[in-house]
Amino acid sequence: MVQRTLSSDLLGKAGHPARIEGWIHRRRQLATISFLILRDRSGLAQVVVSDEATRQQLDGLGEETVVRVDGIVSANAKAPGGVELTAPSITELSAPAATPPVELWRPTLSSGLPTLLDYAPITWRHPVQQAIWRLAAASLQGFRGALDVQDFTEVHTPKLVAGSTESGANVFTVDYFGRPAYLAQSPQFYKQMMVGVFERVYEVGPVFRAEPHDTVRHLAEYVSLDAELGFIQDHRDVLSVLRNVMAAMVESVCSTAADAVECCGAKVPDVPETIPVIHFRDALQLVGADPDEPDLAPEHERMLGQWALDTYGSDFLAVEGYPAAKRPFYTHSEPGDPRWTNSFDLLFRGLELVTGGQRLHELADYEAALEARGESTEGYESYLQTFRHGMPPHGGFAIGLERWTARLIETDNIRRATLFPRDLHRISP
Amino acid sequence: MVQRTLSSDLLGKAGHPARIEGWIHRRRQLATISFLILRDRSGLAQVVVSDEATRQQLDGLGEETVVRVDGIVSANAKAPGGVELTAPSITELSAPAATPPVELWRPTLSSGLPTLLDYAPITWRHPVQQAIWRLAAASLQGFRGALDVQDFTEVHTPKLVAGSTESGANVFTVDYFGRPAYLAQSPQFYKQMMVGVFERVYEVGPVFRAEPHDTVRHLAEYVSLDAELGFIQDHRDVLSVLRNVMAAMVESVCSTAADAVECCGAKVPDVPETIPVIHFRDALQLVGADPDEPDLAPEHERMLGQWALDTYGSDFLAVEGYPAAKRPFYTHSEPGDPRWTNSFDLLFRGLELVTGGQRLHELADYEAALEARGESTEGYESYLQTFRHGMPPHGGFAIGLERWTARLIETDNIRRATLFPRDLHRISP
Repeated sequence: MVQRTLSSDLLGKAGHPARIEGWIHRRRQLATISFLILRDRSGLAQVVVSDEATRQQLDGLGEETVVRVDGIVSANAKAPGGVELTAPSITELSAPAATPPVELWRPTLSSGLPTLLDYAPITWRHPVQQAIWRLAAASLQGFRGALDVQDFTEVHTPKLVAGSTESGANVFTVDYFGRPAYLAQSPQFYKQMMVGVFERVYEVGPVFRAEPHDTVRHLAEYVSLDAELGFIQDHRDVLSVLRNVMAAMVESVCSTAADAVECCGAKVPDVPETIPVIHFRDALQLVGADPDEPDLAPEHERMLGQWALDTYGSDFLAVEGYPAAKRPFYTHSEPGDPRWTNSFDLLFRGLELVTGGQRLHELADYEAALEARGESTEGYESYLQTFRHGMPPHGGFAIGLERWTARLIETDNIRRATLFPRDLHRISP
Repeated sequence: MVQRTLSSDLLGKAGHPARIEGWIHRRRQLATISFLILRDRSGLAQVVVSDEATRQQLDGLGEETVVRVDGIVSANAKAPGGVELTAPSITELSAPAATPPVELWRPTLSSGLPTLLDYAPITWRHPVQQAIWRLAAASLQGFRGALDVQDFTEVHTPKLVAGSTESGANVFTVDYFGRPAYLAQSPQFYKQMMVGVFERVYEVGPVFRAEPHDTVRHLAEYVSLDAELGFIQDHRDVLSVLRNVMAAMVESVCSTAADAVECCGAKVPDVPETIPVIHFRDALQLVGADPDEPDLAPEHERMLGQWALDTYGSDFLAVEGYPAAKRPFYTHSEPGDPRWTNSFDLLFRGLELVTGGQRLHELADYEAALEARGESTEGYESYLQTFRHGMPPHGGFAIGLERWTARLIETDNIRRATLFPRDLHRISP
């Protein structure tokens, strides 16, 4: 049987017959000759059709029809990839396709966001769109690779949970065999429990936030890259692991998706050997904010990002020491000053990309932290069980995959970096 | 600063001082000497305590307390790993731990399943329990590795969906901003859509089934290892990819988790070069079932598994050609005989482990299939969009992670291979 050749492999077959298979990306019919551009997972290939019967056949096959083309590989410096297929015979592998909702063959998709999203199963076929997701896929490989070599164990923890992780707000309720259950807002509690088992764990999986606001930065469901590790000194050890993870993600993007980087014009950062750190208190001062501000406004984050670039030549800046009032109850205080915490946000190009820090590890501290917030330990029993039976100092972080990809391509809207975004208004496709 | 040494690395440090950190796995107090067995992520280490003050300190530290031990590494052929730590000083890294709900230091956990599950954050700390999950984690690496080298692209598709994948049954309903949404029973529709984009895709993620029966084989949430690929001839091409994936999972378990295999006594299979295949029709005959039976009973699957072992020396058997009536509407018929389908189940040791097959790829066939089942196309619009615009012949499969691990350790109940199982009665921990 004749084997299929990928379009990227045609160059090595010049002078020989070859079979290619893929989508009709574009047709151009001239007076005596037609061109067929075929798209497969490796790229584009040009097919030259001069035979009249085959030209007529091609006339009836709309863009996106799936075909097999058998022909002769011929060198042509002007064709994409330096070769083209001549003397082709075309076999239809799908019925003629309906006209796509967008012109996939154009170099860039000019459609607005609603069209992109409404027709996502089709619009992701555009080479530039494909490239965006390939950045995400390559980043995932880098994330796991970096943690695998550091002895982390991959875990998969439940998304159906009995209580909410962070607070009662923004949680989706599920009808669980007639009782209420919830969708996990993060694997936080479970990854901490698993630190008690494997010391170092990571998870890549969906998290759910019933975000009631329609913003360009938030999704109702996104992919969270979570890591957690025990036997740390403090949050700086966590930041150090995070730095290596970010570097590995960048390295993976550059090595396995270099063509995608070029195709979608992604701006891949350098990750400095040591990520610069500024204390929250000093960050407020730097941006001229009120010293009593409990959080950084987006405008402040942008200013800090610019400052890090100017001062350190770094796209990354860690802000540490966030006020306890703005951090979850499991956050470890700063030794000596309980107003602040051993936590950080990692800003990437002036936007929050990662949240991390050291967690409490003593049962008594958890009980005190909950009481200080006027919460009872009810609903936290199995979580607190973990700390009753010995836990090391530990911490971790969570990277939002879509935020990361969105920053790489410098888009204004996170939905452009999400395969099938979910938000207040959208549950389909 | 003194660096921590993992217990598995102590052997190389004989004669030198070392620092270890971990959980007090067990204490044994003799008349003039005490032993402390410390557990870390790499295994166990023995500490010999002869100093009276340190012995008294150890008296107050219950099992599972987290400690740092500084001492001298001394060769001792009788100690685990051939070395022990002598002249230790112990630093407490957590408050003294409460007595664990199970005796984690015993070679095997004799607790019943309810105890194992109720105290999962603690019971997973047992070395044999850890080993079980390590099999799963190693398998995941093998799964992805095999597909990465075959040009598959990793995807993450939404778990919050507007409709149910397979049928209306057994689906969890979510309150989605005041409207009903559902938890995806599988990424089936989305992975097919993404075949239109990347040709070959895989996803590792949670799937949800509101399984109303309490069985040893079903969970309400489990980890599905999904793959889907285009430009196939038929379901045999899918089976061939599956075979390579299974082989890679086994290879990864043996190479990266050999100690876990030994620790939990897992029975790792050989994956034959070609997985034997039997047609559903012949399978019925072989087990002496009525030729009109639409499905295989568990007893039949066991008999077939035994037959494959006896006949081919294989732990695996693919049963192909399942009747159309028992397969989802997107299943491709057998050419020439629409009673049967181009689908298969992979039996592993007489139990269904994987479901796979070829899917329909023509819009008209989808419309006909839905109509034949008395279903309208309503609710399938964005799925069918995909087929309106050209799709290659394609197919795929889904492996249940927990079923796989459960078969490796030959347990009777899938919950023993699940970190935090979810079922009709259990939503916590």
